[in-house]
Amino acid sequence: MKILQEKILQDGIVLSNDVLKVDSFLNHQLDPFLMAEIGKEFASKVKSGKKITKILTIEASGIAAALMTGIELGVPVVFARKKKSITMSDQNYVAQVYSFTKQESSDITVSKRFITPEDHVYIIDDFLARGAASLGLASIVEQAGASLAGIGIIIEKAFQEGGNKLREAGYPVYSLVRIKSLKNGVAEFMEEEENE
Amino acid sequence: MKILQEKILQDGIVLSNDVLKVDSFLNHQLDPFLMAEIGKEFASKVKSGKKITKILTIEASGIAAALMTGIELGVPVVFARKKKSITMSDQNYVAQVYSFTKQESSDITVSKRFITPEDHVYIIDDFLARGAASLGLASIVEQAGASLAGIGIIIEKAFQEGGNKLREAGYPVYSLVRIKSLKNGVAEFMEEEENE
Repeated sequence: MKILQEKILQDGIVLSNDVLKVDSFLNHQLDPFLMAEIGKEFASKVKSGKKITKILTIEASGIAAALMTGIELGVPVVFARKKKSITMSDQNYVAQVYSFTKQESSDITVSKRFITPEDHVYIIDDFLARGAASLGLASIVEQAGASLAGIGIIIEKAFQEGGNKLREAGYPVYSLVRIKSLKNGVAEFMEEEENE
Repeated sequence: MKILQEKILQDGIVLSNDVLKVDSFLNHQLDPFLMAEIGKEFASKVKSGKKITKILTIEASGIAAALMTGIELGVPVVFARKKKSITMSDQNYVAQVYSFTKQESSDITVSKRFITPEDHVYIIDDFLARGAASLGLASIVEQAGASLAGIGIIIEKAFQEGGNKLREAGYPVYSLVRIKSLKNGVAEFMEEEENE
């Protein structure tokens, strides 16, 4: 996705060989125009085949892109919660996710009322690095007996193992940009992205 | 806001005299059509006067409404983070917020890069009960030396003290629905709402 690549080059900050900071447009401040384009792009990736019935993401940084995709496809958006609050008294699906950024493990939970065996679910998340969050969300879809339409990722760090792990597990992965390297303080994209 | 009142009566669950559960359309599963309408409604409340330059909300449940308002007004959306992650190395504005729902206190932080003295900020949040989150966000606007256009709330629990606290502090509060009571398992709305 060309405009996203340009945004990353212009406003992204490469903090190290592993860490790309995109808090000025994606996960602290949001660029609403870009989020709307991202929603359209995700929606266009799954136009054919079985009808999507639900978008699933994880709080907090996945919500904006998931919502815009839900608006495009006209379906509800569910965001997994990272911690149970006292108003979540239902039976929940639970998966454990380790965050390397925050260096802590947490349970993500989704109420059983919101994903059912009839659902065809499109998972959306902001980053794909080691794949922990996506695998946790995919586990929830499986626990629900629902089917998985695909996993849409805004930024895949293709030099880490998550993308391969998900593809080898048979999940369709739609990454809007795939970063080959963050070496020397510069984001370099995979060639197939440049030809999109 | 009539369609929101109807949604609350239809899909909200009154858990006690204090707690209204709206997780099927607002803070766990999102109804994208409703969120878009909410964004339009918030945008229409502040059409006159000084131009809004930024929307400010708090993760996670405020993000959807804030994003839709940002799309309507064509301005960036900032969501305060509840916990510092290792990628947030900047100088931040910090305010302490006590969550009665989660029964814990947390720091909310906003990078100083995203709110500046030139900003005219519209705060958006999902619930107003005791006012802790809104006061924390207003404190961040003040710390930044920015001006506050108003505080937009999806659901105000008008039988709790937050609304009065904010209005007495001189903040313009725009609540889409104001709940007078949750007694006997039924959400009852303030009369001015019914006449909207």
